Amino acid sequence: MTNHVYKHIELTGSSTKTIEDAVSGAIAKASKSVRNIHWFEVVETRGHVENGKVAHWQVTIKVGFTLED
Amino acid sequence: MTNHVYKHIELTGSSTKTIEDAVSGAIAKASKSVRNIHWFEVVETRGHVENGKVAHWQVTIKVGFTLED
Amino acid sequence: MTNHVYKHIELTGSSTKTIEDAVSGAIAKASKSVRNIHWFEVVETRGHVENGKVAHWQVTIKVGFTLED
Amino acid sequence: MTNHVYKHIELTGSSTKTIEDAVSGAIAKASKSVRNIHWFEVVETRGHVENGKVAHWQVTIKVGFTLED
Amino acid sequence: MTNHVYKHIELTGSSTKTIEDAVSGAIAKASKSVRNIHWFEVVETRGHVENGKVAHWQVTIKVGFTLED
Amino acid sequence: MTNHVYKHIELTGSSTKTIEDAVSGAIAKASKSVRNIHWFEVVETRGHVENGKVAHWQVTIKVGFTLED
Amino acid sequence: MTNHVYKHIELTGSSTKTIEDAVSGAIAKASKSVRNIHWFEVVETRGHVENGKVAHWQVTIKVGFTLED
Amino acid sequence: MTNHVYKHIELTGSSTKTIEDAVSGAIAKASKSVRNIHWFEVVETRGHVENGKVAHWQVTIKVGFTLED
Amino acid sequence: MTNHVYKHIELTGSSTKTIEDAVSGAIAKASKSVRNIHWFEVVETRGHVENGKVAHWQVTIKVGFTLED
Amino acid sequence: MTNHVYKHIELTGSSTKTIEDAVSGAIAKASKSVRNIHWFEVVETRGHVENGKVAHWQVTIKVGFTLED
Amino acid sequence: MTNHVYKHIELTGSSTKTIEDAVSGAIAKASKSVRNIHWFEVVETRGHVENGKVAHWQVTIKVGFTLED
Amino acid sequence: MTNHVYKHIELTGSSTKTIEDAVSGAIAKASKSVRNIHWFEVVETRGHVENGKVAHWQVTIKVGFTLED
Repeated sequence: MTNHVYKHIELTGSSTKTIEDAVSGAIAKASKSVRNIHWFEVVETRGHVENGKVAHWQVTIKVGFTLED
Repeated sequence: MTNHVYKHIELTGSSTKTIEDAVSGAIAKASKSVRNIHWFEVVETRGHVENGKVAHWQVTIKVGFTLED
Repeated sequence: MTNHVYKHIELTGSSTKTIEDAVSGAIAKASKSVRNIHWFEVVETRGHVENGKVAHWQVTIKVGFTLED
Repeated sequence: MTNHVYKHIELTGSSTKTIEDAVSGAIAKASKSVRNIHWFEVVETRGHVENGKVAHWQVTIKVGFTLED
Repeated sequence: MTNHVYKHIELTGSSTKTIEDAVSGAIAKASKSVRNIHWFEVVETRGHVENGKVAHWQVTIKVGFTLED
Repeated sequence: MTNHVYKHIELTGSSTKTIEDAVSGAIAKASKSVRNIHWFEVVETRGHVENGKVAHWQVTIKVGFTLED
Repeated sequence: MTNHVYKHIELTGSSTKTIEDAVSGAIAKASKSVRNIHWFEVVETRGHVENGKVAHWQVTIKVGFTLED
Repeated sequence: MTNHVYKHIELTGSSTKTIEDAVSGAIAKASKSVRNIHWFEVVETRGHVENGKVAHWQVTIKVGFTLED
Repeated sequence: MTNHVYKHIELTGSSTKTIEDAVSGAIAKASKSVRNIHWFEVVETRGHVENGKVAHWQVTIKVGFTLED
Repeated sequence: MTNHVYKHIELTGSSTKTIEDAVSGAIAKASKSVRNIHWFEVVETRGHVENGKVAHWQVTIKVGFTLED
Repeated sequence: MTNHVYKHIELTGSSTKTIEDAVSGAIAKASKSVRNIHWFEVVETRGHVENGKVAHWQVTIKVGFTLED
Repeated sequence: MTNHVYKHIELTGSSTKTIEDAVSGAIAKASKSVRNIHWFEVVETRGHVENGKVAHWQVTIKVGFTLED
């Protein structure tokens, strides 16, 4: 694992269902253009409310991936 | 959206099931007395433990709503 | 409740399913050696990613229990 | 000034012009229902962007006022 | 304790004597209009100085109480 | 708005005039290469001083935009 | 003092009287099982309220002691 | 620039007009007694309110200058 | 109060008795060389322990005073 | 320097030797694809341990560079 | 790696030479009584000064290890 | 050690070599004008980059010394 360099990007995923689903959606989308995603960290959990109910969960994550040579 | 003023209040909801359920309960309760809730942000996630199991999830949220004229 | 002294320890639980499951696993494990756990607080939520999917949720919690006499 | 008790509330004002204008708008609105506002503190400065330009400045402030007897 | 929803408000009490006295004063005042206060957390401890002596201790607390049905 | 994924990038704009001007400059520049910028948040406000006067305001913002399909 | 290694633990003491008394109680209790406590740092000051009065001060401290050879 | 040592001091400037004006005033004043001020960073933005209007903007900055030989 | 500039310095006072006493001692000492101290804010509360008892309370404060013309 | 816009990215470099070496490695790697890196700031210092020894230092830095026209 | 539970402890190592040496010393000492240490994170870097020179580097780290079954 | 009052100042040292060297340089310089420096704490570690290499390490420290009678 030595000498690898990792880059972090920050994303927000949204879901009408759960926090986990919002995170998974953001990672799935990012994986289409970035290879080698290894980990994430939840930075912020927010949401929109409509008529007294949670309409969307919005979870911001920091994602880390290996910079390829 | 210009010139609207929003107020934020801080609430803690609790649930025996999930983090999402605790948040939804707090928003449902607040919606009985406050109209126009638009968003929330999770501030803290805690819980009580009984006999080695999570008895209640307690999630503190900041809730934002429009101040009416 | 007066005059009790509480100690806090920090643990990380992991789960392939949900944030709640990772927390419950850490508390269940700690309860085998520490009696009187009363509460927890989520400190950090992270995870590992494999092939564009969340492989494990890793949730760090601070756990509080009574120091016995 | 002794023995006074102050309460703090959190508001977000918005303006198409400046940060200062967003703060002043929130305080003017709050002053219609709360007397004795003495100070504020800027908590967060955000904004909406439309077509590559700042459409609204949104400034969140904590406002302190005296609780009357 | 399940399914209760708590609200938090932020207050500053002042005292010429001690930090504890400033906290107690703020809670006593708030209890006149809010029932069911259960806990507080000290957010900030400040004070005014006159002639090289502490004239007032000013302690800001977050106070939590049950939202009644 | 469901299922969109947002990315955040961090920029510093500078201006000899005002904080607002530094923010607007950074957003204008970023809009040349990134479409769909929706919001920003001020992260840090700094500046250079020359001869006892503010020579440049330097404002760091976090900018959020939609990841396109 | 060179080459010593210190360990930190986090405790919460409680007292019906003062913040200082809650700290002293936690340190006295910890000293029964841990030798060589050298310092503490206050991490959080909270309390329980009953009938509009502070029932217990609860002060969380981080305590440092020398790991013996 | 090597081997220079910088010192930082913290100041609060006030202005009835703008945040920028409060910062500039603090720097101008400090420049009367401290040479070689190079940069500042805004630490806190507060203000006083009178009759529902911002009476003074009070901006706290950290200022950095070269320690001369 | 307009156009005044304030400077902040950071001090640690110590006392064998109370937190309040440690703060008062630091302010009394600073007042011998700095005029016009107006306020303080507690930044950190620590202490030394000897034989399982608090030997000294050490309280770090930020102190604000007017820069004279 | 006026009117330049800077972008920041976050990287983690690793080294078996020192913190400085981990930082230098991340900057060297980033410089292959990004021109005009001007500064960095250490965000986090971590490491992996194997058999009671530090196997790799992992240092996360924020790197700033000029956005070219 | 699933279903493992990790515990974190906080240590301070000291060295007359370097930051890296202080970290390594704390980990070596902890490894005598705790097996399975996997990672550390630097929490704080301080030091003592004698006669205008750094006498000891004191580095506080959080250390994570697997709780064994 | 009772009744001593300490003052803290913030400095930035720079070095082309190491973090430790930047700290030592700042302390050596400060010791020319301030007696009785006892400790320091690293507040921020930054640096300048030239041609893809670290040109200077810039380490900001808080330094504590005894106020003499």
